[in-house]
Amino acid sequence: MKESLPNVESPDWVSAVKFNDDGLVPAIAQDAENGEILMMAWMNPESLALTAKEGIAIYWSRSRGKLWRKGESSGHQQQVVEIRFDCDADVILLKVEQRGGIACHTGRRSCFYRKLVDGEWVTTDPVIKDPDAIYGKPQGES
Amino acid sequence: MKESLPNVESPDWVSAVKFNDDGLVPAIAQDAENGEILMMAWMNPESLALTAKEGIAIYWSRSRGKLWRKGESSGHQQQVVEIRFDCDADVILLKVEQRGGIACHTGRRSCFYRKLVDGEWVTTDPVIKDPDAIYGKPQGES
Repeated sequence: MKESLPNVESPDWVSAVKFNDDGLVPAIAQDAENGEILMMAWMNPESLALTAKEGIAIYWSRSRGKLWRKGESSGHQQQVVEIRFDCDADVILLKVEQRGGIACHTGRRSCFYRKLVDGEWVTTDPVIKDPDAIYGKPQGES
Repeated sequence: MKESLPNVESPDWVSAVKFNDDGLVPAIAQDAENGEILMMAWMNPESLALTAKEGIAIYWSRSRGKLWRKGESSGHQQQVVEIRFDCDADVILLKVEQRGGIACHTGRRSCFYRKLVDGEWVTTDPVIKDPDAIYGKPQGES
């Protein structure tokens, strides 16, 4: 299994990234075409290197403690168009093409589907596809 | 000083946010007009509540250990148009109008001014204003 590979090389560009005390860096996924922010997840050096190598977003699942090949269950892979990092070298930005048009495990396009209105969180974005239809059963990561 | 106020109320909508073990949540600032991602910083409950109350982005400076009223030195405040949070309730998204058109302490529009090209980080975005002219002297947060 890919997540047990101990010898994935860590190129210089990965070493330039500042990972936190848990060895992770936040990674924002943004729709390459319309600029919509789809989600934010976390990466370790291996997942970042693999993301660049394979051209699809591969995160680190904190809950499962292993590589998370986004879309492995749902088919909703993210094809990486561009990788950026910020001035402090501690945040990654992926510009992606979102397969299936759904990034969120709730079946919505974006994970940021709730908006603060008059002191309350209001759901503004529709469910495009029932999560049960996507996964067969409920789960937390897509 | 605002940052020493112990009694800023924490409304229900703030309590709905999951802060990490350090009491912080990542907050992405996105240009409300063109969708460009300007920066990512961190918020504690107080800074999040104050951001909504005052309508300008107020972060928590991890390096300085206090509230960071974005733009207090540079004048480059971020007027908040919209506040969202994600499906896991552990990431904040601010849609903002960036005063001065500069979010980054390097004098660039966005902090994500470096792009991975053939295994190297390449600077793609110009400095709009010399940081020394913005701050008078070099510093890390704007």
